Amino acid sequence: MTTTGAGRPRLTTRKRPGATAREEILDAAAELFTTRGVTSTSTRMIADAVGVRQASLYHHFATKDDMLAALLVGTVDATLACAQALRDAAADAPSTLYALVWFDADQLMTSRWNLGALYLVPELRSARFEQFRTRRSDLMALYASLSRDALVDIGTLVVSEELTHLPFRIVESVISARSDAESTRHSLATPDTIADAAVRVLGWTGSTASLRDTATTLLAAARPVSR
Amino acid sequence: MTTTGAGRPRLTTRKRPGATAREEILDAAAELFTTRGVTSTSTRMIADAVGVRQASLYHHFATKDDMLAALLVGTVDATLACAQALRDAAADAPSTLYALVWFDADQLMTSRWNLGALYLVPELRSARFEQFRTRRSDLMALYASLSRDALVDIGTLVVSEELTHLPFRIVESVISARSDAESTRHSLATPDTIADAAVRVLGWTGSTASLRDTATTLLAAARPVSR
Repeated sequence: MTTTGAGRPRLTTRKRPGATAREEILDAAAELFTTRGVTSTSTRMIADAVGVRQASLYHHFATKDDMLAALLVGTVDATLACAQALRDAAADAPSTLYALVWFDADQLMTSRWNLGALYLVPELRSARFEQFRTRRSDLMALYASLSRDALVDIGTLVVSEELTHLPFRIVESVISARSDAESTRHSLATPDTIADAAVRVLGWTGSTASLRDTATTLLAAARPVSR
Repeated sequence: MTTTGAGRPRLTTRKRPGATAREEILDAAAELFTTRGVTSTSTRMIADAVGVRQASLYHHFATKDDMLAALLVGTVDATLACAQALRDAAADAPSTLYALVWFDADQLMTSRWNLGALYLVPELRSARFEQFRTRRSDLMALYASLSRDALVDIGTLVVSEELTHLPFRIVESVISARSDAESTRHSLATPDTIADAAVRVLGWTGSTASLRDTATTLLAAARPVSR
């Protein structure tokens, strides 16, 4: 069922958050993909959830996969921009890493739909999602490079390659925590706790208060750039 | 295409690892679920991959979801048994946690198919997967309880509830690392690194060599029980 009369412009109030029709469509698609699954969602269902006809949908996205690709890229783009701004600020590596982890964990926790829950579905291996996979790999590499610098700064004796991948993994664990939180009623970790964990696994042993202070300052400067 | 003649017992060599027909079916289902997705896999495809007719499949499993449920329970059962054996051994909490993380990370890394990649699919919210969800919740609670004891043992000043959930998250991050390893060519973290990370986030600052030694002894004693 759609809420619009045949052939008439939509006069009802919007059913969905989003400044544009494109954003409304993406919001509806995100809800259906994360609650019903990608394969079980049809463009017809998405059109119904927005309250428009399928033809209007195709004006913005040629296929369901195009919507999914746009949504997935959206989960990493703000963090990539933040990472760039943080690198330009050229602060010490542990504080920079702390700030990046904080920002990323916060956005993964507070985004309207938990789209990261779709990262592991086999469908994402197709060519259509190349751009998303590349950007997520870029982000992964940025985390690893920052973690390598942080290990040296911290003075951890053995700079093992595998250790440099853990902060990224700890950030993304927010996705599965958020998914489980619905059923387990566990409170989600705060971004502070996730950022603390990311530096502790690299060997940071003291208080993290100074890292947090520097990170707060860095993010206050970096945020306008990332929007 | 099946490799068996109509109405004849199968004489060809087995296409799949597994001591029984049931195990062969589960292996084929696991491969298809993790490479094609659950919704895109039909029981017909599973029958073809085993090399039997669909009717033979239904002799073992009434539905595709029954196969998925059995596979998912299999991802947590060995670790639950290990956790029970470790608790009976009554060693100190940090060593016990270290051993549990090591065992769980190892089995998630080395299982033939990366079934954990299916944990977040929306389909698992249905009643059919209640048993799996309950067991995974039990495991999560065991991790949290052990982590709480470890925090006290370590002498971490603030025993925050959210901190007690991180070791479980760090273990499960192995799933997404393994999924990404196919495309990024990153080497997977060893179980040692994952276990180190789990105690470091709880505030363990010294060497982890003694924990590893005790954990090795504990696991040598616990393993026969968990099989």
